[in-house]
Parts: sequence; structure tokens; C-alpha cells
Amino acid sequence: MAEEKKQEVEELTEVEAAEAPTTEHDEETEDIDIPEVSEVEELTNKFNEMEDKFLRARAEIANMSSRNKNEREQLVRYRSQDLGKKLLPAIDNLERALATEVTDDQGASLKKGVEMVLESLNVALKEEGITEIKAEGETFDPNLHQAVQTVPAEADVKAETIVNVLQKGYQLHDRVLRPAMVIVAQ
Amino acid sequence: MAEEKKQEVEELTEVEAAEAPTTEHDEETEDIDIPEVSEVEELTNKFNEMEDKFLRARAEIANMSSRNKNEREQLVRYRSQDLGKKLLPAIDNLERALATEVTDDQGASLKKGVEMVLESLNVALKEEGITEIKAEGETFDPNLHQAVQTVPAEADVKAETIVNVLQKGYQLHDRVLRPAMVIVAQ
Repeated sequence: MAEEKKQEVEELTEVEAAEAPTTEHDEETEDIDIPEVSEVEELTNKFNEMEDKFLRARAEIANMSSRNKNEREQLVRYRSQDLGKKLLPAIDNLERALATEVTDDQGASLKKGVEMVLESLNVALKEEGITEIKAEGETFDPNLHQAVQTVPAEADVKAETIVNVLQKGYQLHDRVLRPAMVIVAQ
Repeated sequence: MAEEKKQEVEELTEVEAAEAPTTEHDEETEDIDIPEVSEVEELTNKFNEMEDKFLRARAEIANMSSRNKNEREQLVRYRSQDLGKKLLPAIDNLERALATEVTDDQGASLKKGVEMVLESLNVALKEEGITEIKAEGETFDPNLHQAVQTVPAEADVKAETIVNVLQKGYQLHDRVLRPAMVIVAQ
């Protein structure tokens, strides 16, 4: 035991002697080495964290970009929804006014003017993507039509067929602005 | 070929240096220290670059966010511009139709209907931010009015005053949809 210990000490001395010829040098190398290993680790961790934050930010940019593109497209596509909806009663009233029978030239001229206005309103709505919902003769679709009355289906009319339209419905692209009010055979 | 050879030579030199540290101690310490210091430097540089990229990405996110908010607000604010513009001729025509003199009850009823429609159209436009441009009696403003005729200014009418409106102008918030066509005193 004692011998072994002695040998160990000798070996250590040898190693020390080989690795560090001067005491000064020894200390210096230790001082530099130990913090550097942990500094490297620390820096690597910091870098990895920062890289992770950067990659998340880049993903967020990509998400924002596609989300915003989508939002803009939706806003443009449905931009006429509010004004379009508000015009529907005006169109109803013009159509009702046209049902008035006129007896003289002045009345006929007024009626002609109203017809032209109605025509131009419908063109403007169509250009913005607002169209009348098909109803009469179609199969009833609760997404597009609102049944306000039913009549018994007869031999030449199948059940669930719309037999009459009480108020026109309108849709903006795929969105219903107002369902058609209809009478359905049942 | 030449490059490969050069690299081979460099590798050999490195191996030699690593395998034979014994000749001078100073060199040995340098051999150990230099890679570590440069590793720290390299990592620090990599971290700084990554941090810079992250900060730029974060700034870009902030910019995108405010730019998109602004774009959305503009799209919503002026969404009725196109449909609104297309409605103006219809309103002109309805107003013209109302100038027709009617002689019987049917004509009067038709006219009453048209008046109501016109009223509802103007309400719908106003709700969307579309209003008539003030013109008659106002001072001529080339941003809002288009002079199609001038008359000599008289004692009770100052120069540059609008004395008559030939066609109404409309604006959507601060944007002119159509200038008013006017006659100006000069």
C-alpha cells in the first residue's frame, strides 16, 4: 500500500512535470481551460435558443403572410355585402312600383324610367357578385329558401318543389344575403 | 486536383502538430488554446448573427402587423366604393324620373313609390359613408367640383361661388366618387 502510494505520487509528479514545465504556465492553462469548456457549452445553448426563437419568428412571418392574404381576399370578395343587403328593399319597392298599372303617357314614361333604373341596379349588383337565388321550380333547399307556406303536391309537381316565390332571395357569391321566401309543394 | 493535394498537405501538418507536441512547450499550449478561443469566438459570432436575424424577423413581424391592420382598415373603410359608384347613375335616373309631371292617381302612386326608393337608397349610401358633395352656394373647390360653365359674378354673388349644380357629386368619406358638375360665378 505504502509502496503503491509512493509510486502514484511519483507518477503524478512525472505527469505534472511533463505537462507543465513551469508552475505559472500550469495555473494559466487551468484558468483558461475550465471556463472555456463551460463557456462553449453556454454559448452553444444560447445559440440554440436564439436559433429556435428565429425559426419560430420566421414561421410566424409565413403564417401571418398567408393569414393576411386570406383576410384581404375575403374582405375584397365580400366587400359589397353590407351595401348590397341594404339595396334589396329598394329593389323590392321598385319591382312593386312597376306592378302599378298606368293609364297615360306620363305614367308610362315614369314606368319606363323605373324599369331602366331597376335594370341598372341589377347590373351593378351582378358585377359585385350579387345574384338572385334560383327558386321557382327548384327543389327546396333550406340553405337558400325559406318556406312560408306549403301546398299539397299534385300529379305534375313533385314534393319539395317550389311552386311560388313571395320575395326574391339574393346571394353574394356563396353567401346568402337573404333567402327566397317561397311556397313549397308537400 | 491541386486543391485536394493542398488539403491533404494541411491535414498532414495538423496531425504532425498534434502528435508531436514535445519539442517546445509553448507551442503545445498554443495548440490547445487557439482552437478553444476561436471556438468561443466562432460561437459568439454565430450567436450574434442569429440574434441579428431574430431581431430583424421580430421587427418584420411588427411591421407586417401594423401594415396589415392599416390595409384592412382601408379595405373596410372604402369597401363600398365600387358598388356605390355604380349606384350613382341609378340615383340620377330616379331623380330625373321624379321630375316627370303626373296627371292621375296611378302616376302619383308610382311617383310616391319612386320617392321612397330614392330615400332608402340615399339612407343606404349614407350608412356606408357616401354623401352628396355640398355645392350650391359654396366656394368652388377643384377637388370637389367640376366647372362646366361660368357666369359673370353679380353684385350679390361673389366670384368663385357656385350658382348652379347640373349633376350632384358624391364622396365616400374623404374620397371623391364623382365631382359635382357646376356653374361658377366669375
